[in-house]
Amino acid sequence: VDGIDLFLDEVAGAEHRDIQFVPKAERYDLTWGHPDPTLLPVDELRVAADAVLSHRGWQALSYGTSEGAGRLRHALAERLGRGTTADELVVTHGSSGALDLVLGLVSEPGDVVLVEQPTYFLALRIIADRRLRIVGLPPGAHLAPAVAEAATAHGGRTFLYVIPTHANPTGRTLGLDERRALVATAAEHDVTIVEDEVYAELGTEVLPSLADLDPERVVRLGSFSKTIAPGLRLGYVRTTAERAAALAGCGVLDSGGGINPFVAGIVADLMETGAYGRIVDRLGATYRERMAVLLGTIDDAHLPAGRPTAGFFAWIRAAQGDLVAAAADVGLAVAPASSFCVDRIAPTHARVSCSLLGPADLAEASARLASVLAGRGRTCGV
Amino acid sequence: VDGIDLFLDEVAGAEHRDIQFVPKAERYDLTWGHPDPTLLPVDELRVAADAVLSHRGWQALSYGTSEGAGRLRHALAERLGRGTTADELVVTHGSSGALDLVLGLVSEPGDVVLVEQPTYFLALRIIADRRLRIVGLPPGAHLAPAVAEAATAHGGRTFLYVIPTHANPTGRTLGLDERRALVATAAEHDVTIVEDEVYAELGTEVLPSLADLDPERVVRLGSFSKTIAPGLRLGYVRTTAERAAALAGCGVLDSGGGINPFVAGIVADLMETGAYGRIVDRLGATYRERMAVLLGTIDDAHLPAGRPTAGFFAWIRAAQGDLVAAAADVGLAVAPASSFCVDRIAPTHARVSCSLLGPADLAEASARLASVLAGRGRTCGV
Repeated sequence: VDGIDLFLDEVAGAEHRDIQFVPKAERYDLTWGHPDPTLLPVDELRVAADAVLSHRGWQALSYGTSEGAGRLRHALAERLGRGTTADELVVTHGSSGALDLVLGLVSEPGDVVLVEQPTYFLALRIIADRRLRIVGLPPGAHLAPAVAEAATAHGGRTFLYVIPTHANPTGRTLGLDERRALVATAAEHDVTIVEDEVYAELGTEVLPSLADLDPERVVRLGSFSKTIAPGLRLGYVRTTAERAAALAGCGVLDSGGGINPFVAGIVADLMETGAYGRIVDRLGATYRERMAVLLGTIDDAHLPAGRPTAGFFAWIRAAQGDLVAAAADVGLAVAPASSFCVDRIAPTHARVSCSLLGPADLAEASARLASVLAGRGRTCGV
Repeated sequence: VDGIDLFLDEVAGAEHRDIQFVPKAERYDLTWGHPDPTLLPVDELRVAADAVLSHRGWQALSYGTSEGAGRLRHALAERLGRGTTADELVVTHGSSGALDLVLGLVSEPGDVVLVEQPTYFLALRIIADRRLRIVGLPPGAHLAPAVAEAATAHGGRTFLYVIPTHANPTGRTLGLDERRALVATAAEHDVTIVEDEVYAELGTEVLPSLADLDPERVVRLGSFSKTIAPGLRLGYVRTTAERAAALAGCGVLDSGGGINPFVAGIVADLMETGAYGRIVDRLGATYRERMAVLLGTIDDAHLPAGRPTAGFFAWIRAAQGDLVAAAADVGLAVAPASSFCVDRIAPTHARVSCSLLGPADLAEASARLASVLAGRGRTCGV
């Protein structure tokens, strides 16, 4: 018993269920995009929470400004750089709340949202809850021409939801040329892009986001779930100052006094003291090491979306057969490709995550995955 | 300089704006439904935050269950009593987030929402953002017959938004007979009620909520903004277990791992240690004393909705003239009646709040308000 198991012992006898995570039957669970509990910056948060309540108590506990705490938005604008200003930022309930908030403002029921295949499956639920039509782009297609073709075919108001960096579930990062081509295509076909950049800070190189390339046409979503902790439920939207003001003017944000002023005050404190930068550097490096361990035994032929160097996820392809079933035979839980697609996809593909397990578990899981892919279990080799 | 002014000195020189409150030009500001900063339980929250991070760190910082932390929902169900169970509760982003979440599930654009006049003005914005049609009931009408008449006139799917206890802006509390009549009328005319009970815990007597009387037909919204602190942005929905599961199944809650797990853990701790009960008792008693001070000099003739004994608000009527302008002449800021109504209303009415100012300021404000109402300023006497 180590890693996540050690922590789960803590909650096994709990009277009430507080956490989302439920362990799979398999010994090595590569399905969850959750951080390893040992990586959560509990001590830094304890210090920051105490500092906020000691020095700014009533301000952190009062109704906040609709657009979110000024200190956080200014610190964040500085960190995002590339010309980002505080008045372009709205604090949100994670990137999930950000996506829902943005769709509520800019879309009408019945509009089309284009998505890559595979893509983040729960974003599809948020989009569907807003009564929008989801159209999946062809799996593996080059993004810019696929968007051009789909937008032309549709004709009506069209959005694109995309994760440019260390994507969920593929780990793929769009290069700078691909980013430029994509925003040019979007401009040509009048497509509004919503980019979900929750993993962007975890890499060694931060490319310009799509919003950096075209701030008018691209709404950027961000989150502190991966760079601090998911339980904080704090994220943000970057858009034009005009659209940011319209988001902040919605009834929920005005009535509630912004999103999570108390937590926003804590995150602002982490940024101002420099703790945030240290936490992100530590988490990013740890996940990069873990990704290298997880993929160390995996041949390029099994990585159709490329070899991710950072973030949480990689996309695995077996030559044939059902990869989820074959992995389960050797004690591995992997996430089925069908979860991430609108259209049908072969069961040869699956998502694996390096975020939850420690390096020893990941090394063993990697060896077992390699053996499955080499055809030494069910027929899944190249 | 005392009371709120003392605190505002703290933020006057601040580089960035974090709080919603902006002082009015008048010396005594009775417009805001915000708690006095001195009443916020900063110390209790510091203890609870430290306890949660020390003893439950990773659990409070991980993705939570979609419906919200089990510990909080169980403690809350016990506190609400009257048969409430944990599976009927969903943790939300305050009562504002609760209203938006519920409307997203149970309504379709174009449905009608009946509201009292006057009512909580920012609820109207949240309802309008969901593209629903707002129909104001006649000011001062008896609620059950007015609902029956409006529902009959409309014919289509109809909701009622109502604040049964210590209402915003009138301070009016529906008696038990009125509550029974209202749920009976709603049943007869197939109206779904959304009750906003954010002030209910602040009184000495807690009547059965409408949801207690008819759990199938009434969705109850609650909040910790008035009983702990607004900056926590935590509230809840009570509805049927089936509807609660549907709310928890929406994309935003599933993707995000529930609302504010970290803050929910802190509030659960406050409940389990008994601190919550002590805070509510203290705040409730303080606001009741302040309400008595504010209304002590005001004649019943100027309180058309009755004399509130608890909560934040009272509804004031002058015999004639513009009450906001007359009050401003003597250094009082009061909230204009028109803010709280869909239809036109005479400027003789206004809302006053006892929540923000200390007792000395309230006593002086009360004396000045009485002088205005007695006609010793502009023509506003009885």
